[in-house]
Amino acid sequence: MARELYELVGADPERRFSPYCWRARMALAHKGLDAEAVPWRFTETERLAFANHDKVPVLVDGDTAVADSWEIATYLDRTYPDRPSLFGGAEAAIRFIAAWTDQTVNPALVRLIVSDIEPLLDPGARTYFRTSREARFGATLEQVTAGREERLPEFRRLLAPLRSTLRAQPFLGGATPDYADYAVFGSFQWARAVSPLPLLAADDPVRDWRERVLDLFDGLARKNPGFES
Amino acid sequence: MARELYELVGADPERRFSPYCWRARMALAHKGLDAEAVPWRFTETERLAFANHDKVPVLVDGDTAVADSWEIATYLDRTYPDRPSLFGGAEAAIRFIAAWTDQTVNPALVRLIVSDIEPLLDPGARTYFRTSREARFGATLEQVTAGREERLPEFRRLLAPLRSTLRAQPFLGGATPDYADYAVFGSFQWARAVSPLPLLAADDPVRDWRERVLDLFDGLARKNPGFES
Repeated sequence: MARELYELVGADPERRFSPYCWRARMALAHKGLDAEAVPWRFTETERLAFANHDKVPVLVDGDTAVADSWEIATYLDRTYPDRPSLFGGAEAAIRFIAAWTDQTVNPALVRLIVSDIEPLLDPGARTYFRTSREARFGATLEQVTAGREERLPEFRRLLAPLRSTLRAQPFLGGATPDYADYAVFGSFQWARAVSPLPLLAADDPVRDWRERVLDLFDGLARKNPGFES
Repeated sequence: MARELYELVGADPERRFSPYCWRARMALAHKGLDAEAVPWRFTETERLAFANHDKVPVLVDGDTAVADSWEIATYLDRTYPDRPSLFGGAEAAIRFIAAWTDQTVNPALVRLIVSDIEPLLDPGARTYFRTSREARFGATLEQVTAGREERLPEFRRLLAPLRSTLRAQPFLGGATPDYADYAVFGSFQWARAVSPLPLLAADDPVRDWRERVLDLFDGLARKNPGFES
């Protein structure tokens, strides 16, 4: 039975833009495992009922369905121990790095790019997206991102611990990448897929790191439709 | 030759309050290594000249002097590989957690507690402390901490990634503590040593974790003079 990864896409089924799906996709590549891409769009929750879940990523691996990017990554290391490890001995610490991304980076990032997403969606998903996000923010998408250029310095300051770590080592994993890199990279890849906003200054070590991750696995992430900033 | 750790203290030589010295002291305890406490006070830079450094912690281990808490921790794991590991396979990821503490937690924390420190210092260190910190902040110590109770919710929000990690596992190191725990704990121990401000709500999982770390090594950190909040 083929391995499949359900991934959030826009109107273009090649435009994968979920940070969490990118974590799973990069984790699979790190393990050297293929997985057929199954395009999934907002509102298609019934298509995930088989996994008892309503969000992507969902990995189907033979008879096993695994939902949630963290669960997928730990499943892969557990199930394929002879392939390159995603966590090494660092699972506990990488959980913190993923949590930092979820709770510090992503809430700031969505307020910079959310208004860029709707035009890229399948028409059937646009109303859902706008309605649900505007309810969450209590503002229109355009109001949420208004003045975003002025908020870029604040966003870049949030990345200080990432920046200083990447001054000391080429990847969050050290000399080579691991799941910590993919957990953080997913967010930059989300932004790259949907927004022309130049998130990172040209001389930012974080930008150099992002380029290194874009190059991994024969440029897997670079091939995704996106903006070059 | 005895092992010695130079540690920042107040007027009371038992009141150790440097977050970075606490990282080193907890690291030594984790390795099961004794080190005589050498009290050091602000302005005594010439006493550290032998280590080519001007700040504590400085570890003297036989003929070797090691300055900087990160250097001390990595030195200990390298030099005593048969004792419990501080980093396991997670050194690269723990570097991020230490950087997050340095660049996110500590800059917010100092603005909550800096005015509590001066009265605890040796009289000879007070002028240096006030002058250098007021120059850094461009404000009096009292102005820096004014309205701090109102800023507690913001500080607690900064700890979100710590909180969610500690909901999933008892220590940042996982089932047992490692250097990630000591890196973050040092900051809470700094605050505990100098300030009566209740940093953490009673039901905060971060508080429960702090209590667990205070209990380690026969209550090593709990024995330090401090405020119980």
